[in-house]
Order: sequence, then C-alpha cells, then structure tokens
Amino acid sequence: MKQSTNHLFIDACFCKPVKRTPVWMMRQAGRYLPAYRAVRKKYDFITMYKTPEVATEVTLQPVDIVGVDAAIIFSDILVIPEAMGMHLEFVEGTGPRFPNPLKSERDVQALRAIEAREDLFFVMETLRLSRRELANRVPLIGFSGAPWTLATYMVEGGGSKTFKAIKTLRFARPDLLHQLLTKVTDAVIDYCTAQMDAGAQAIQLFDSWAGILEERGFEEFVLPYVKRIIEAIRRSGVPIIYFAKGGMLWMEKLVETRADVIGLDWTIAPDKARALVNGRAALQGNLDPTALYAPPDVIRRLVREMLEQFGSDVGYIANLGHGILPDIPVEHARTFVDVVKEVGRATL
Amino acid sequence: MKQSTNHLFIDACFCKPVKRTPVWMMRQAGRYLPAYRAVRKKYDFITMYKTPEVATEVTLQPVDIVGVDAAIIFSDILVIPEAMGMHLEFVEGTGPRFPNPLKSERDVQALRAIEAREDLFFVMETLRLSRRELANRVPLIGFSGAPWTLATYMVEGGGSKTFKAIKTLRFARPDLLHQLLTKVTDAVIDYCTAQMDAGAQAIQLFDSWAGILEERGFEEFVLPYVKRIIEAIRRSGVPIIYFAKGGMLWMEKLVETRADVIGLDWTIAPDKARALVNGRAALQGNLDPTALYAPPDVIRRLVREMLEQFGSDVGYIANLGHGILPDIPVEHARTFVDVVKEVGRATL
Repeated sequence: MKQSTNHLFIDACFCKPVKRTPVWMMRQAGRYLPAYRAVRKKYDFITMYKTPEVATEVTLQPVDIVGVDAAIIFSDILVIPEAMGMHLEFVEGTGPRFPNPLKSERDVQALRAIEAREDLFFVMETLRLSRRELANRVPLIGFSGAPWTLATYMVEGGGSKTFKAIKTLRFARPDLLHQLLTKVTDAVIDYCTAQMDAGAQAIQLFDSWAGILEERGFEEFVLPYVKRIIEAIRRSGVPIIYFAKGGMLWMEKLVETRADVIGLDWTIAPDKARALVNGRAALQGNLDPTALYAPPDVIRRLVREMLEQFGSDVGYIANLGHGILPDIPVEHARTFVDVVKEVGRATL
Repeated sequence: MKQSTNHLFIDACFCKPVKRTPVWMMRQAGRYLPAYRAVRKKYDFITMYKTPEVATEVTLQPVDIVGVDAAIIFSDILVIPEAMGMHLEFVEGTGPRFPNPLKSERDVQALRAIEAREDLFFVMETLRLSRRELANRVPLIGFSGAPWTLATYMVEGGGSKTFKAIKTLRFARPDLLHQLLTKVTDAVIDYCTAQMDAGAQAIQLFDSWAGILEERGFEEFVLPYVKRIIEAIRRSGVPIIYFAKGGMLWMEKLVETRADVIGLDWTIAPDKARALVNGRAALQGNLDPTALYAPPDVIRRLVREMLEQFGSDVGYIANLGHGILPDIPVEHARTFVDVVKEVGRATL
C-alpha cells in the first residue's frame, strides 16, 4: 500500500485508499454563496481575483460554509492571455472579454512569453495567503485554462455560439493555430510551475471548450499540448486533474494525457467511465449541476446513486459535472457535500 | 440485392447499393442563400413557413442552386407545440419563442391533442406543392422535432444556457415530464403520419437538445419516446432518420431506436461511428458546419477525408454535422456538394 497523506482529496487523486470519498465542487467559490455576493458587491470580478486578500477570503468561504474537502483558488483562466499582453475587460452580466481578439499572424507573434512569478504575482500571493489561512485543514488546488480553451477565448474574444473565429483558424490556418497553442502551452507550464512553487497542492487544467472540436481536431490541437504540460509540470505528490468538458466521447485519449485524475462532465455514465478508464486514472465528477435545483431529498437520492455507480471509493473524487450555478440555494450545495460525507465511506 | 428506387438518397438510407454517395445539408433552405434572404425580406419567419407557396419556393431553392440530392421542407419544429395550444412569437434576431412556457401541471394538462392534417394544414400543403414542383427530381424529406427537444422548448420558452426549467422538471418532477413527453409523442406520431400521407418520402426526427442530458436521462426521457414514434410511423419505403445532437456518446442506444439512418454530429470520428453501428443503420453526416468557413481548397480536402473515413458508399449520406450557418458563402456550400458528387462514387 502506498504511503498516504493526511488529505483525503490528495490520496484519492493518486488512487490510494481513503476513509471516505472526498468532495468539492467546481466554481465552489462563487455567486451561489451569499458571503461571496457580499464581497462581490464591493469589487468587480477582476479586482477580486487581483487582490490577494479578497481572493483568499473567497477561496476559503466554501471550506467554512459548505465543508468541502479541497479549496480551489479564486482566479480566472484568462489571466494568462492578459499576462501575454491582451487587454481584458469585464462586462457586467457577461463576464471578462477581450475587446481586441487575436486576428492575424502579427497578433500571435506580438504575444509575450510570461514570467508567471512576477506577471501573475497576485495569483501566487493568493496561493500563499490561502495556504496560510487554510492551515492544512484541506489541500489547495491551483488551476489553469488548457491551451485550446485559452486560444479559443483569445481568438473569439469571449464565449461564442458558433466559434466561427477559432474554427476558421483551425480549418484554414492550422499552422498559425499551432504557433498560438505552442506559445500558450509554454505560458501554462510556467504558470502551473509557479503555482506549485507558491503552494498549490494539486493542479486542475480546465478545457471548457474541448467539446466543440471533432475527434481529429482533439487529437491535433488539444492532446499534444495537454500531454506536454502534464509531462513538464509533474511533481511528486502534486496530482494533476484534466477536465475536458464535452470530451467524454474521447475517454481513451483523455487517459493518454497521463493526468492523475480525469474530470468527467455529467453526460457519461459513471460505471461506463470506470470501465473505460479501468484504473489508469482517478475520476472526478459528475453530477449534473442543474440537479442541485431539485429539492434536498431528490439531491440525496441522486448523489447516493452517483456514488453507487462509481462503484468504489478508490480513485474517486465526488464533484459536479461542471461549475455550480449561481442561483443554487446554499442548502442544496451543502446537501450535496453532506451526502457524500455520509455515504461515501470506503469498505477498507 | 434489394430493389432500388430511382433516388440515391432513399437507397442510401436503406443501405442499398448506390452509384454515388448522396448529399444534402441540414438547414439547406436557409439564410446562407441570397435567394432565401430575398424572400425573407418580404415575410417574417413564421409567415414564411405558414404560407405554402412561399415555403415551397424556399424548399426548392437549394435543389436548384446548390444541387443537393434531397429537399427538406421549409418549416419549424415548433409548429407542434403551437398546434397543441401554445402561443408562439417571433423575435427578430432571436427566432421563435414561447412567451408563456409551460410552468405547471395545469399547463401540461391544457395542451391539446393535435389533428395534424387540419391543424398543420399549411405543412401538408407545402409537402404537396413541393412534391409537385420537384416532379421527382429528388425526394422530399419531412421532419419533426423529437419529444425531448420539443418539451425542452415548451418548458424553457426558447433556447437556454443552463436549461434550468427543463432540468428542474426532469429532476424534481419526472412524472410530470413523462406526462408531457407522452402528449408530445402522440402529436409527433400524428404529425409524421400526416406528412407521409401528404407526400414526405423520408422523415427526419431532430433531437437538438439530446446532448444536454446524461446517459440515464437519455435512457429515461428520450429513448422510449423515440422508439415508440419510429415503431408507430414505420412505413415501407419511407426511411426514418434520427439525429440526436450531442448524443454521440450513446451510439449503442441510438441504434436501439431502430431508425434507418443515424444522423451524426461532427464530434464523432466517422470510422468509429461505422465500427460502433456495424451495419445496423445507415449513417448521415458529419462535417463540422464551421469547416465551410474555410477556403474551397480546404473544404475539398476535408470532404474527401470525410468520405474516406466513412469508408464505403453503402449506407452513407453525406451531410454536415449540424445546420449550415447563415454566413457561409454559397460557393462554399456548392463546393461541399460538388466534391461529394465527384468523389463519392461507389465501387459497385
């Protein structure tokens, strides 16, 4: 048996035996918490994550209020493109956007290499402060957008319905897209390394737009870059989680990334994911975030069923299949966490 | 060898040998065509599909202008909820919406059973007129929304980012959702039957929102209803196509519907789909619609590769993986069609 840490979450990431299933929620430091909204009233979103004291306060809220087994720093995936030189704007009601998305070869060439320790000092400071405040109660997760998703935002300027800009680049100028992805990958590696140096005890790579690609596109524009990052940042004891939303069709390729943990969205059945991955990685997920709109007794049943379907407490971290939605009642989030803690006891 | 019709498209749907791969495009009667926009300038969207002469004109445009191997009537999936008693509004720039979505048990109970021949007379008239105008040049496809997708629109009022309303119903009141789906299924059966009587030579069921569900939800709220429809409307010589966008993860269950043709979105690799379906249905798809933003020489290469990956001309209909986008140049759409016609020759 491998040596265990004192953290359920870290042990579960490495498929070590745990006393019970750990649980956290994507976007747990977010608007569904009245305590978060109280802070958010005072600052805009960008100011919040750029001010380490504020970001730390918000990072810790779900640990104290909802009782999750891991904290994830409050930040945004768009800090990398901003550090690379893109102007970021916050539009109330829409979120952060790049008013001048990348349009040409020259735009891509103008992107700077980042020095994350300095350029993203506020993130490192948030990590250090959060570690101190957490005092080892639960581990702290750092994160980054994955290259394809970051490139998509950089080329589109924000979200999109058809993703015309990035898809046109993908089909008409794959060479230029590869240039962009290479630069972004270098930045992600530097950023994740700096986060681990600053105290991140796990890293999650968010690939929110993986699912807009077709399988060949995933193989060409996603997989090699994610593989390179994971190989470059691997460090003893710090698990890496890869979450490719909409990519459940390509489970075999997700395993190829050699991530310690594969994040699952809600579309895939837990037992099917277990069978496909077959012990080669731990799994994290995957309750439909909208299930938390249901009354607590329904949530209880759904979480129990999810735990049963994952079938074992080894190599499993309970989570939602995407970020918690802003209008979920806190009691419902707490029910989700509580049921995992009650039911998710390993048969060690 | 089975008896062939004189239509490539129909033969391909039934996996009969064909001289070459047939091709059409979802949403081919649409805004990318200047001829369509000219008509659209004179009428709003709802008036267009409710006026058989106008709908017929638009139905035929892509046959004449782009040279597709099948026509699909110009209509909208929301005609069923409207016939069931819901008030439909057209919002310029957004599309059709229900300003009063279903909110209660009473709303569901108030929905009327439809008499498609009368209530949707304009659709039947469009089918009859289009058949006459087509004069057997190419076959005419009728279509309907599938029950889950229609129920989603009826409960949400329109599209949605989080699908809070339908998901809440799905998790908190599955019994009521089943009531709704049963009523909608009855209407779809009546509607498709009437369409075939009016001359539809194939039926496509569009399940545009299948992909927002998880696998168990698909099994419970989609599959039984689609199966019931297909069983009820099956008629000799009239193929049924089922297109569940975002449902490529559940290929085995798509085959269970016993549709003659499974529509593929672009996320799944053609050779993988072929292997999974293994001759149990014909396949239709699946070029990423955004690929048509690329220059014609790139489109040519992509279409050739797609045809190669499908691997055989038997049981295959070339199409996009979703509707053609409104700002695609007509020449690009024509390139798509032309390349299939050039390259898609069977080795009979």
